Amino acid sequence: MTSTKEILIRAKKTVSALRGVSDEKINEALLAMADALITEADEILAANDEDVRRAEGHIAPVMIDRLRLTRDRIEGMAKGIREICALPSPLGKVQKRTERPNGLIIERVSAPMGVIAIIYESRPNVTSDAAALALKSGSVSVLRGGKEAYASAKAITDAMRRGLESVGLPADAVQLVSDTTRESANELMRAKGYVDLLIPRGGAGLIRACVENATVPCLQTGTGICHIYVDKSADTDMALDIIENAKTSRPSVCNAAEVCLVHRDIARELLPRLKERLVDKRAENPVELITDKEAFAIIGGTPAGEDAFDTEYLDYKLAIGIVGSVEEAVEHINTHSTMHSESIITRDAEAEAYFTSSVDSSSVYVNASTRFTDGGEFGLGCEMGISTQKLHARGPVGIEELTTYKYIIHGNGQVR
Amino acid sequence: MTSTKEILIRAKKTVSALRGVSDEKINEALLAMADALITEADEILAANDEDVRRAEGHIAPVMIDRLRLTRDRIEGMAKGIREICALPSPLGKVQKRTERPNGLIIERVSAPMGVIAIIYESRPNVTSDAAALALKSGSVSVLRGGKEAYASAKAITDAMRRGLESVGLPADAVQLVSDTTRESANELMRAKGYVDLLIPRGGAGLIRACVENATVPCLQTGTGICHIYVDKSADTDMALDIIENAKTSRPSVCNAAEVCLVHRDIARELLPRLKERLVDKRAENPVELITDKEAFAIIGGTPAGEDAFDTEYLDYKLAIGIVGSVEEAVEHINTHSTMHSESIITRDAEAEAYFTSSVDSSSVYVNASTRFTDGGEFGLGCEMGISTQKLHARGPVGIEELTTYKYIIHGNGQVR
Repeated sequence: MTSTKEILIRAKKTVSALRGVSDEKINEALLAMADALITEADEILAANDEDVRRAEGHIAPVMIDRLRLTRDRIEGMAKGIREICALPSPLGKVQKRTERPNGLIIERVSAPMGVIAIIYESRPNVTSDAAALALKSGSVSVLRGGKEAYASAKAITDAMRRGLESVGLPADAVQLVSDTTRESANELMRAKGYVDLLIPRGGAGLIRACVENATVPCLQTGTGICHIYVDKSADTDMALDIIENAKTSRPSVCNAAEVCLVHRDIARELLPRLKERLVDKRAENPVELITDKEAFAIIGGTPAGEDAFDTEYLDYKLAIGIVGSVEEAVEHINTHSTMHSESIITRDAEAEAYFTSSVDSSSVYVNASTRFTDGGEFGLGCEMGISTQKLHARGPVGIEELTTYKYIIHGNGQVR
Repeated sequence: MTSTKEILIRAKKTVSALRGVSDEKINEALLAMADALITEADEILAANDEDVRRAEGHIAPVMIDRLRLTRDRIEGMAKGIREICALPSPLGKVQKRTERPNGLIIERVSAPMGVIAIIYESRPNVTSDAAALALKSGSVSVLRGGKEAYASAKAITDAMRRGLESVGLPADAVQLVSDTTRESANELMRAKGYVDLLIPRGGAGLIRACVENATVPCLQTGTGICHIYVDKSADTDMALDIIENAKTSRPSVCNAAEVCLVHRDIARELLPRLKERLVDKRAENPVELITDKEAFAIIGGTPAGEDAFDTEYLDYKLAIGIVGSVEEAVEHINTHSTMHSESIITRDAEAEAYFTSSVDSSSVYVNASTRFTDGGEFGLGCEMGISTQKLHARGPVGIEELTTYKYIIHGNGQVR
């Protein structure tokens, strides 16, 4: 077992080996990594079986499902890498260029981060996605997955490392931390000078631990208390379609809606139809409606408790509140949201403009489901997570968001 | 005395009052703030006298000089605000636009941070620069200056607040923290949910405290161990001019050079001339040359101790080392630098390309002095500091770097 410290030292050493490597070479490596996943599918499946056997009975069936690999899922992981490979390189782009009166030519050029550490949980595909995204961005990755998925992650990483070596790049450009205790997560959070960017990808507890403890630069991803506000001018059919989709198409993900705010003037018309749609007529998985006083008076439901509007349910549950204006809706959202995704359903240009300019979240929708906040849906390719912070990157974190920039200044002897 | 907590609550409340305020209105406020500094110059000078009297005998003369205001310096502060006013607004810019196959129109639009907190030390002009930069970027500022300059900062802030009110904007868009103990700095660092961006502007100790303790997003600014590497192909006359400028034109600032690395093949020619230039022929402030073994053998000097190449001298001192290649120079820089500014003096295109692509610092120069790393010199206007981190902004932090972005997505009922 290699110590986390040793892994970090190796990662830092490998940064210089990736500098100046052409995008062609990186793509060659990515393809070799994808091929290795397929070639070594048997070993990966065997390791995954081990993980699943160990986990059965200890974690929820939905978690077992997240953990389990199949030949199809491995194909999907390889396909994910190939798609990243097809993206244009985010490196070496001249983002700005100025020629100063003194003759200095100042260019702002995109550049690799260096070492990117990712702390994640049990989904094995994160291992290959994260490594491939980091490599395409010119960075070395240090992966620290959950202990339930360790054997799978190890087999996947080993395959990818062989892929890297087969094209002459250092295997240490992708490393897996073998210590899966909390200790190694803390070590990564405090690896100042070794980790250029830390991405926690997981539940609220992990994100909170990183915010509290990290001394390395950190990108918060994840938690989404997403809102849909139905304005009084809304097309109610559209509103019903969007709410149902945002809530029920995949309730366990961060871009699913958790709260619906309805304008008072439209509540008596909309809410009974919403109840019919989400509760009465749904054969499977009826939605529990958690209603504030006014909404309760109209359609009943579960009376909202203190935390009803501050909970990421990730379940077939929707909090419903009544507001008197778009201003009140925005005020509520800016107070209770996690700054992930919010949507207004409206036909009023003024309400729309107010909502989009005033809501402080990273993705603000007009007449569409919040479920689109996703790298693929945004056309950015696969992503490392959804950033809910304001520093650096917001929304889907793709390969561009995994780079930094530097200024390169050319002179001919200028002094100041 | 208003508590820091109360100041943060007010700041957060004021964020919404600045939303949607036009750039014209913001400029009107900035001009009123600049005018107020001039109108209230007597009060500001009287407050500053108080600070200076209290400080005399307790802090170094150079710090007293930093602290002292004159009518001219106040004019300079007002001029700084007017220059910020003349910059184009960084807000509401569509940075990217995609139309997706499903008809969603996705725009990435620049947006205000919200609340920007700045912890700084004794220079009174930082108070007005920081407030004006934040306001131009659409953000509320919470200023926490050093205790030596409190009376000055208070008078300056009061004037600016009156300026804001005179055009109908809330005075609380600019607030000064009245508690100048370490307690208030810690409170700002941990004001999660209140501070969207924290900028420590000061010495290495302050920056370290922020990195260690901050749970709010933080932009590290400042410390610069800047290097000049003289390649074997260098024009030695140019090298001497640049080294002298980078070291001696203003040694107390972060973009001054602290280390000079010289290629072995050119050392016997260059170093004696460098000694002549920086030591023997300088009537005032001769530079102390701190030399590694090889450099010492050629020109003597102070033998380099263990930390010689890891010290930000901010003084007439220059560490000199000999290297065998541009690769060795880059390796040294990437190990010892604070990622601020580095320069190569060369006539060799290959060495230049290797240096600019491999050096990991935020500003990498070819044949120019490191002293140009500065918002004004980069054409970005006045700045909040020089970022030495990779996340978000690198190099000069101007109004653009003080903004974030959000995605605004327009649909017509799209669901997923």
